[in-house]
Amino acid sequence: MKKTHIIPAAVAATVLPTVALAQDAAAVTAEMVWIMNTLLFLIGGFLVFFMAAGFAMLEGGLVRSKNVTMQMTKNVALFSLATIAYWAFGYNLMYPLGTWSVDGVLSGVFGAGVLEAVGIDLAGADDGEYASTGSDFFFQLMFCAATASIVSGALAERIKLWPFLIFVIILTGIIYPLQASWKWGGGFLDAMGFLDFAGSTVVHSVGGWAALAGALILGPRIGKYKDGRVNPMPGSNLALATLGMFILWLGWFGFNGGSQLAMGSVGDIADVSRIFANTNAAAAGGAIVALILTQILYKKPDLTMVLNGALAGLVSITAEPLTPTLGMATLIGGIGGVIVVFAVPLLDKFKIDDVVGAIPVHLFAGIWGTIAVVLTNGDASLGTQLYSILVVGIFTFIASGVVWFILKATMGIRVSEEAEIQGLDMAELGMEAYPEFSKS
Amino acid sequence: MKKTHIIPAAVAATVLPTVALAQDAAAVTAEMVWIMNTLLFLIGGFLVFFMAAGFAMLEGGLVRSKNVTMQMTKNVALFSLATIAYWAFGYNLMYPLGTWSVDGVLSGVFGAGVLEAVGIDLAGADDGEYASTGSDFFFQLMFCAATASIVSGALAERIKLWPFLIFVIILTGIIYPLQASWKWGGGFLDAMGFLDFAGSTVVHSVGGWAALAGALILGPRIGKYKDGRVNPMPGSNLALATLGMFILWLGWFGFNGGSQLAMGSVGDIADVSRIFANTNAAAAGGAIVALILTQILYKKPDLTMVLNGALAGLVSITAEPLTPTLGMATLIGGIGGVIVVFAVPLLDKFKIDDVVGAIPVHLFAGIWGTIAVVLTNGDASLGTQLYSILVVGIFTFIASGVVWFILKATMGIRVSEEAEIQGLDMAELGMEAYPEFSKS
Amino acid sequence: MKKTHIIPAAVAATVLPTVALAQDAAAVTAEMVWIMNTLLFLIGGFLVFFMAAGFAMLEGGLVRSKNVTMQMTKNVALFSLATIAYWAFGYNLMYPLGTWSVDGVLSGVFGAGVLEAVGIDLAGADDGEYASTGSDFFFQLMFCAATASIVSGALAERIKLWPFLIFVIILTGIIYPLQASWKWGGGFLDAMGFLDFAGSTVVHSVGGWAALAGALILGPRIGKYKDGRVNPMPGSNLALATLGMFILWLGWFGFNGGSQLAMGSVGDIADVSRIFANTNAAAAGGAIVALILTQILYKKPDLTMVLNGALAGLVSITAEPLTPTLGMATLIGGIGGVIVVFAVPLLDKFKIDDVVGAIPVHLFAGIWGTIAVVLTNGDASLGTQLYSILVVGIFTFIASGVVWFILKATMGIRVSEEAEIQGLDMAELGMEAYPEFSKS
Repeated sequence: MKKTHIIPAAVAATVLPTVALAQDAAAVTAEMVWIMNTLLFLIGGFLVFFMAAGFAMLEGGLVRSKNVTMQMTKNVALFSLATIAYWAFGYNLMYPLGTWSVDGVLSGVFGAGVLEAVGIDLAGADDGEYASTGSDFFFQLMFCAATASIVSGALAERIKLWPFLIFVIILTGIIYPLQASWKWGGGFLDAMGFLDFAGSTVVHSVGGWAALAGALILGPRIGKYKDGRVNPMPGSNLALATLGMFILWLGWFGFNGGSQLAMGSVGDIADVSRIFANTNAAAAGGAIVALILTQILYKKPDLTMVLNGALAGLVSITAEPLTPTLGMATLIGGIGGVIVVFAVPLLDKFKIDDVVGAIPVHLFAGIWGTIAVVLTNGDASLGTQLYSILVVGIFTFIASGVVWFILKATMGIRVSEEAEIQGLDMAELGMEAYPEFSKS
Repeated sequence: MKKTHIIPAAVAATVLPTVALAQDAAAVTAEMVWIMNTLLFLIGGFLVFFMAAGFAMLEGGLVRSKNVTMQMTKNVALFSLATIAYWAFGYNLMYPLGTWSVDGVLSGVFGAGVLEAVGIDLAGADDGEYASTGSDFFFQLMFCAATASIVSGALAERIKLWPFLIFVIILTGIIYPLQASWKWGGGFLDAMGFLDFAGSTVVHSVGGWAALAGALILGPRIGKYKDGRVNPMPGSNLALATLGMFILWLGWFGFNGGSQLAMGSVGDIADVSRIFANTNAAAAGGAIVALILTQILYKKPDLTMVLNGALAGLVSITAEPLTPTLGMATLIGGIGGVIVVFAVPLLDKFKIDDVVGAIPVHLFAGIWGTIAVVLTNGDASLGTQLYSILVVGIFTFIASGVVWFILKATMGIRVSEEAEIQGLDMAELGMEAYPEFSKS
Repeated sequence: MKKTHIIPAAVAATVLPTVALAQDAAAVTAEMVWIMNTLLFLIGGFLVFFMAAGFAMLEGGLVRSKNVTMQMTKNVALFSLATIAYWAFGYNLMYPLGTWSVDGVLSGVFGAGVLEAVGIDLAGADDGEYASTGSDFFFQLMFCAATASIVSGALAERIKLWPFLIFVIILTGIIYPLQASWKWGGGFLDAMGFLDFAGSTVVHSVGGWAALAGALILGPRIGKYKDGRVNPMPGSNLALATLGMFILWLGWFGFNGGSQLAMGSVGDIADVSRIFANTNAAAAGGAIVALILTQILYKKPDLTMVLNGALAGLVSITAEPLTPTLGMATLIGGIGGVIVVFAVPLLDKFKIDDVVGAIPVHLFAGIWGTIAVVLTNGDASLGTQLYSILVVGIFTFIASGVVWFILKATMGIRVSEEAEIQGLDMAELGMEAYPEFSKS
């Protein structure tokens, strides 16, 4: 077929009669709806999965070379542990309402768990369901893991491996699923009318709050704030960081598009299309605003700000990627870019050391995105949005803080001063990421 | 199910009766056709999106380390600006014929623009349409952005950031959409019978012509051509360049496969399958020919030629990925590989400095691919193909040249000599890509 | 739509009536089944394609910087040659049984080959077929190429380019397809009831056996085993290796999920969902077990073991990703992690030098995965599984060994001692991967 919008006669001859004939019959069969919805979860899921690689590369590029092996280890391990914790109890904590086949919080471990039997049919895929539970589990798991990825970047270059991983288990097994159930499990925030389409609050701000609590309790890296000055500690590989950003941007189509949760009708897949286009527009807006702002403020564009600007644009549109126009989406994302440019130095002013800028990107832009829902979605109430931001924030910040505090008090969360100066790679793992390149 | 082509009895029992029953009913309903076509645009779109990362990594690997941060900045910024420019006026310039809901060139900004309302139904997705406009916009945008990515590689290591970005806005907002409308907007080249399935000419040669005009006006890098000798300036990271090539290869399945524009019938998706297989074959052909040729000519295989050979194979098959047999596709791609191996030194002979080989890959192989359509597609006329190549080439070369010339005359397009020698990263951005690795 | 499992009233109003109406009509039409199955092959295929990049990055990160250009060259070339060899005769050797349109082993070259005509209809896509042959070819090709990728890692840093590539042609054109036909072509192992869903044996162990034969005949790298000690030769870029692992993990969803070979019914796509979730769980299990074991054994977690642990988990679940529960999948993958941690030093004890750990990951975990089928699939017979492992192993090991032996005797397979010490990049290709970074 030619790439013109006027369907050529030859094509019309083969397609249109079929279409005409079919008009009388049912639009889409129940089975096809179920199949298409499931397919959306699977495609969305593998795209969001790939964000684990995106976070790893972004963080690996923004830490110094002496900490890259550790950052890679943390990222692979946190995703793997999230997989296990979300299966063991997270998923069933998040969806406890009985509409899906759930038999208790630990049913993942002790029961048939979240997967349907092999080779079910539509009758067997009972009422209330509109897609495969397995595909939904796969998709939701990726969101849960993303929360932990956000934390790993902020606390890089100084946190011990094992306490961090224990925190990950609690975050992905309990903290994230519990608060997510308030909205996506049909809980009290959902009942109040809180709107958060794909998780500006439920995913991103939660990761950001957990990171903030950790950063406060952990303290800044040695030498970061000295004599009232902020010491820049440039990332070791900006090509890798850029790759990470692009992978995250790619994954976000699955993140936001998949959150339509259905594509078995014209309306649903047209909405998914809107979401794809808006998500892309918001990222572009965030990147360009950060580019222009850093040019104006510092006379030189700042690539790390541009990367974080794009990500902040993406986070900003995540609470409502459907209802904005393309122009509005660009604007909402652009304000995400503004937030990043001003919030990064602001955190430094408070001596909160966030290695990759995760708190501005995921927490601050997440709050902005959640508020911005009221700009384009007539069903949104500003009060409810603010209330929900607060409730989720207070819960996550306190719960995370308690866990960090206990971890600090019992096993310690910070590597020794010598280890930090030497680099976590050699000190903790005995393995360099770039053994032949780094200046010694 | 077992991975054998003989459908096992158990499966046949569950699938075939359904199938038999359904034979009497309509083949595919109108709604499902619309859904599947839209899904093709979405999947194709995210694959082509990822090519932005591919270009960035390819170029980041082929420039010297002192220019990597700048190359990353350009790639993120050009994609973001293309998103905005194509939305603001490009898309509506490209499809002005009124079959899609268009209300003027700036309707993207001032009108409802290119997105359907939320939650439309098939009746609301009016006649003449066979897929979501939003998905089409998303897909077409990615092609437009690819054009700009081609330019950024050729002009690397010496062009100023802002003039380059202004050029990108004009290229993606006006030059590309205008000429694309001649073919894909149903314009005069389309009416003449010009065939360019996925854009060997409309996308790749346009990027190549714009790059050529820029390279001529910008001039070569300092020291590239000295005392009649060509000075090799080896890329800083061939692993990254290889990754970029693989990402581009992956994205090309969306590029060519998505250009079938439909997968809601057996015929369409079987064609998409042909296209996937042929696209892959052509890339393989280009890579292997470049490998063998460089072994013969230089006694040593040249990885950068192999990478560009694969890309040239992909460009070569892009004008007609459907009608060739697999063997013919391999051959067409292989000739792309020949072109690269001979054209790269040829450009050097004319002192045209193309940092990553974008002109041989996208312009020369693009011309070849457009001509090669006549080999396998009986509807193609060599005269029309040549005429269209010329028309598009002359227009793009002159339009780009005028823009480059004005930019040069007004704000200047080239960094200072000191900046170029020091590297654009430190001189223009104050930030190194690999601060801990590079030899100082 | 909100992300809650309780379908909101508004949605129910638009979706459910359609569904109810459609219940009476046929579930899914024959044409839609064909389209969906084909789409699965296409999506699965591009995901598995991307594994070529994953292998390249994994291997590029695990070799020393002086051999990276060569490793990239090998990976691009092997994939390209596999494309050509599998087209020319491999595919028709693998599926010789006449159910698909095959007219002789070289029909790929001389006949219409594996692609259907352009624009077929369902009637034209004849009996016995349930998806596009072109899509199946595309999908199967990627599995064939993966086999060769496995070999390239094990033999890195010392094998000559051209003999390696000749081996690749024979492996992908003859050895792999021949043994694959025994199972997936409906041959004698299939008839016996051998179960290997996505290829723990057919793909991974075959790659592993070919690598083992090569490693034995080629010998270890100079200096690897000296004075009874194993000399560690750390990889040059662990960030790149981690990226490679993540890309492979992503691709594995296509590898295992696509091997369901159908998604045109509720049962099939629910099974694909199970497979996605189980594949992910097994990778997580492998990674975490390797993390914990290396912590216990060596007091320091070992990132390369964690990466290979995840990959071994993936290989382990590949023979049966459908029937396990999530817990069982995690366990099966975890045992893959155990295997890697113990097998890597074991190979060193026998002075078998496997640069990236391909033999533990693909051969040993492949055997384990093939045996593990009996744990969850009631149709599996331990005897048949073991017999098939042996038959495939003996055949591949001997056939590969003969080819390696002939190559060694005729053209030599190993670079000169000086070339190996200098590095293959400069010695064989005259091109460094990181010309500005490496210590000289």
